[in-house]
Amino acid sequence: MFVSHRRIRVDWGHCDPAGIVFYPNYFRWFDECTSSLFENAGLPMPQLYRAHGLKGFPLLEAKASFSGSSSFGDDLDCETSVSEWSTKTLKVQHRFLRDGTLLIDGFELRVCAIPHPDDPQRIKAAPIPAVVRERLGGGPAGA
Amino acid sequence: MFVSHRRIRVDWGHCDPAGIVFYPNYFRWFDECTSSLFENAGLPMPQLYRAHGLKGFPLLEAKASFSGSSSFGDDLDCETSVSEWSTKTLKVQHRFLRDGTLLIDGFELRVCAIPHPDDPQRIKAAPIPAVVRERLGGGPAGA
Amino acid sequence: MFVSHRRIRVDWGHCDPAGIVFYPNYFRWFDECTSSLFENAGLPMPQLYRAHGLKGFPLLEAKASFSGSSSFGDDLDCETSVSEWSTKTLKVQHRFLRDGTLLIDGFELRVCAIPHPDDPQRIKAAPIPAVVRERLGGGPAGA
Amino acid sequence: MFVSHRRIRVDWGHCDPAGIVFYPNYFRWFDECTSSLFENAGLPMPQLYRAHGLKGFPLLEAKASFSGSSSFGDDLDCETSVSEWSTKTLKVQHRFLRDGTLLIDGFELRVCAIPHPDDPQRIKAAPIPAVVRERLGGGPAGA
Repeated sequence: MFVSHRRIRVDWGHCDPAGIVFYPNYFRWFDECTSSLFENAGLPMPQLYRAHGLKGFPLLEAKASFSGSSSFGDDLDCETSVSEWSTKTLKVQHRFLRDGTLLIDGFELRVCAIPHPDDPQRIKAAPIPAVVRERLGGGPAGA
Repeated sequence: MFVSHRRIRVDWGHCDPAGIVFYPNYFRWFDECTSSLFENAGLPMPQLYRAHGLKGFPLLEAKASFSGSSSFGDDLDCETSVSEWSTKTLKVQHRFLRDGTLLIDGFELRVCAIPHPDDPQRIKAAPIPAVVRERLGGGPAGA
Repeated sequence: MFVSHRRIRVDWGHCDPAGIVFYPNYFRWFDECTSSLFENAGLPMPQLYRAHGLKGFPLLEAKASFSGSSSFGDDLDCETSVSEWSTKTLKVQHRFLRDGTLLIDGFELRVCAIPHPDDPQRIKAAPIPAVVRERLGGGPAGA
Repeated sequence: MFVSHRRIRVDWGHCDPAGIVFYPNYFRWFDECTSSLFENAGLPMPQLYRAHGLKGFPLLEAKASFSGSSSFGDDLDCETSVSEWSTKTLKVQHRFLRDGTLLIDGFELRVCAIPHPDDPQRIKAAPIPAVVRERLGGGPAGA
């Protein structure tokens, strides 16, 4: 399993009047860590999307558990990997730590999307390109 | 149980290059719907926080399931209520519909927070003020 | 000149650790007020974009002056209109007031964009559709 | 004059349905670059705020000019410095380049703020601490 690492700096504008990160920002960072996961595995999304005609990997589910808060100036160490695969979906796990202490963990269940054949403004589920599964460590489909 | 309603307009800046809402925005709207829930129950948060010395209701968990996407110009009908209570926590349920079709549902598990007695920059869990439980329909504690 | 009005509620997540709106949110609201301007003039952007093959009205310049701050729970009264026109650009003026007092004023200089003929991923400046100028009060081009 | 550098990666969620950065994000990045400016000069804001009892440096004005757009996967090279000083205000200049080409330039006019003596929820202008001017290259006040 391929594990991607990214460091995120908590800035002033991420924090709320209680002085801690406004929680939807963690989901923004989940999304950015998923981009980093693909890039660090040698599959930067912009090129991947163009090469395979994808519209992206929209969400089916997202969840986070918050065991600690973070504040302006904190550095978060983020670990990201794919923990589950199906033909058209993948589950991305995220763990955010500060100085070795787990603050946030969660996941994104994502589906591979292409333009809908009837209306290119809409999207449609599609099989995940094999190269994604190979590079992100899922092994061959059906394994 | 008190149910709060809010209508949200999807705007250009909420949407991503696939033309659909960038999902962390749904969690921003969960948070805004929770503010509306309190206000619609006669307990606007700014005054509630001042009256009871609260620092807010930070998150322990948040989850969303996405059964449909939404795009620029859509109007979302949002239903919000508290489905579970404990002494210091409450679980807020959210359902977002468009033209009667459920697109998003999820919840926020939140804890009542006050300034930490040792360091007012930090926060500490505290019992939810009784008036919150009364107005949001949870009935008396222990019921 | 057509003037559009929109009321914006300042929510918890818009505010920073100083307890006031994090200023980039005012530019988000400028953008939303520009959407409302078009819609209130009978030209909702999603339909306008489809009808005229536009990619949007990206920015050439944006500026805001802040003469007061706003906080969680405030309601802002927003006034928006087009103050200057050229063939391909328009200048949108914004004024945000609270209880009749001006807090923020600024502008967006925007250009009409279509897909670039050489690469549909890129954009290219184009003349503003005549109906936009008619409805938003600019009078006929050359007037 | 002290010049600070920061590299910013444009991610999926920063971009709009036209495939380019939604412009208020540039102002978010202006704010983050201002944090970096202070930190790179040896004055990280969280510690500076605590040491001098500041509530931050809220905005009086902000402006940006956009001579090019940026998209998912781009890396922006950001240059930040203080170009003008008064007793209580400073003007922060920002230039964002991609591969040596200037895309965005702008400024933030900011004022030094402390808690208002009559109401700690409100803020009040105050002289900029001397150390800020020394480290950020403005020379002594009155020079």
